[in-house]
Amino acid sequence: MAGEGSELERGLCVIVDSFYRYAEGPPGAKALDQAAFQSLLSNELSHQLTVRPGYRHPKATGPSQLCQWLDANKDQKISFDEYWQLIAWICQVIRRQGESHMS
Amino acid sequence: MAGEGSELERGLCVIVDSFYRYAEGPPGAKALDQAAFQSLLSNELSHQLTVRPGYRHPKATGPSQLCQWLDANKDQKISFDEYWQLIAWICQVIRRQGESHMS
Repeated sequence: MAGEGSELERGLCVIVDSFYRYAEGPPGAKALDQAAFQSLLSNELSHQLTVRPGYRHPKATGPSQLCQWLDANKDQKISFDEYWQLIAWICQVIRRQGESHMS
Repeated sequence: MAGEGSELERGLCVIVDSFYRYAEGPPGAKALDQAAFQSLLSNELSHQLTVRPGYRHPKATGPSQLCQWLDANKDQKISFDEYWQLIAWICQVIRRQGESHMS
């Protein structure tokens, strides 16, 4: 899945794959428990979420708060749609940082 | 921006970069006109949007209909937030196709 098409297309596959490499559960109901979510953050997002000063999320100073913020239905697990909110937020931060360099 | 961190982090930067490589306008108000949007589709998303049968969007049989579907405020341009809806939709299609292979 991840090897086909343009750099953008490969990037989209990588995002979806990043969730499923850590998620567990039956097909159609795969989710990240807290341990899997923390592994994903430290293995896959350590640079974006720690090195860059602009990345302090107002509601989430660390992984467990970030998990609570994302866990919209409070089932102690992160679904793909909940994970997507983190992806969207990081892209907005990358975008704002990119635009601040343009002006 | 795009070269740092994990494969996932590079993928997130590629998504944001893909918009700004085609968008025009003042900082903070960059957007894709119809020609730029069609160039982006054919250069960056041709594989995902044409080769894969599952990608026929119910409301958009071609680039100009896709543009109309995304252009929520009907200003004839595609903002980053409007572009993001296309990114989210493609990732949902990749996800559904991936899950159908799991079951």
